[in-house]
Amino acid sequence: MNFSSKLLEQAVAEFGRLPGVGQKTALRLVLHLLKQPETEVSRFTEALDRLKREIRYCATCHNVSDTAICGICASPKRDGGLICVVEDTRDVMAIENTDQYQGGYHVLGGLISPMDGVGPSDLQIDSLVKRVEAGGIHEVIVALSATMEGDTTIFYLYKKLKDFGVQISTIARGIAFGGELEYVDEVTLGRSIATRVPYERSIA
Amino acid sequence: MNFSSKLLEQAVAEFGRLPGVGQKTALRLVLHLLKQPETEVSRFTEALDRLKREIRYCATCHNVSDTAICGICASPKRDGGLICVVEDTRDVMAIENTDQYQGGYHVLGGLISPMDGVGPSDLQIDSLVKRVEAGGIHEVIVALSATMEGDTTIFYLYKKLKDFGVQISTIARGIAFGGELEYVDEVTLGRSIATRVPYERSIA
Repeated sequence: MNFSSKLLEQAVAEFGRLPGVGQKTALRLVLHLLKQPETEVSRFTEALDRLKREIRYCATCHNVSDTAICGICASPKRDGGLICVVEDTRDVMAIENTDQYQGGYHVLGGLISPMDGVGPSDLQIDSLVKRVEAGGIHEVIVALSATMEGDTTIFYLYKKLKDFGVQISTIARGIAFGGELEYVDEVTLGRSIATRVPYERSIA
Repeated sequence: MNFSSKLLEQAVAEFGRLPGVGQKTALRLVLHLLKQPETEVSRFTEALDRLKREIRYCATCHNVSDTAICGICASPKRDGGLICVVEDTRDVMAIENTDQYQGGYHVLGGLISPMDGVGPSDLQIDSLVKRVEAGGIHEVIVALSATMEGDTTIFYLYKKLKDFGVQISTIARGIAFGGELEYVDEVTLGRSIATRVPYERSIA
């Protein structure tokens, strides 16, 4: 692109570095901000600067938090003996939105992915093992994406945790609610027949 | 969404205010920035702050510029008697990328749109009239979008400029290169038959 201004070009380059934002979108966003009053733009940049400077992670579950221990870990209403292991804070938000879960979390911060150079030591796995080792945990639910990286990570966690005598579960895989059978891929369909559940349990 | 952190929520809200960025995308972008080193994030916010603080607009054509007069207006190689009127700086970039145009520009900063409360006085129309009035201009090419707002603006500009004895042109409308006839809408097809050009001209 031919930029008439170096400042504009730099701002577009910075936006273009964000995931899923191409040059044209970056330019559109930057020109939008340029049309806004200066206070709007400084509010935008300040929110990001503050986030980066002041954000903390819960010492127990490693979720994003404003306090040393996050609200979920600190809540006496939640089952402290139940841990749901997730990839990142978005998954915590998704599960919290279901209103179906009353235990705690453990945020790994990623998935094991040798292709991307992410090994077990880059993730919050040791601290999970320590939490389980410390006792008082009766079940660990592993809620990771159904991808190769997710499956590798589940397998690794299972090996690390299986000797502590806690129940290790994974979330159910199968046909989504509202999904039509004929459009489901064969792996999912085959697995969901193999892992069929008694009807009484499916409506519980 | 249930945010575990106010800081995170604020940053997501700010991103979500950008055009075409929903809550989920905003969260994805913010979490991406959160994973980056602090220097990356400050480079991002600084580029935006500097852009907003230091950006200038060319005193002649009102295009975004780092200098008082932009590179195009200052260039002795360009035809100063030819002005191409566009909506914003993106259009200047698009036309410059064609390498087909060697005149100057005039950036209106928007289109007349009563629905959005944008009237002629909100745009750089008076300064265009003054440029033409000052003399030395032989042709004004109006290159605006083929929308109702674009057509309204062209009509207004035509009324304002027609008495100065300059040629006023609009860019050609018609079937795009590579466009298949059967998929063209009937307005475009009808107009492109009405404004047909001699074959010799079309291959010039």
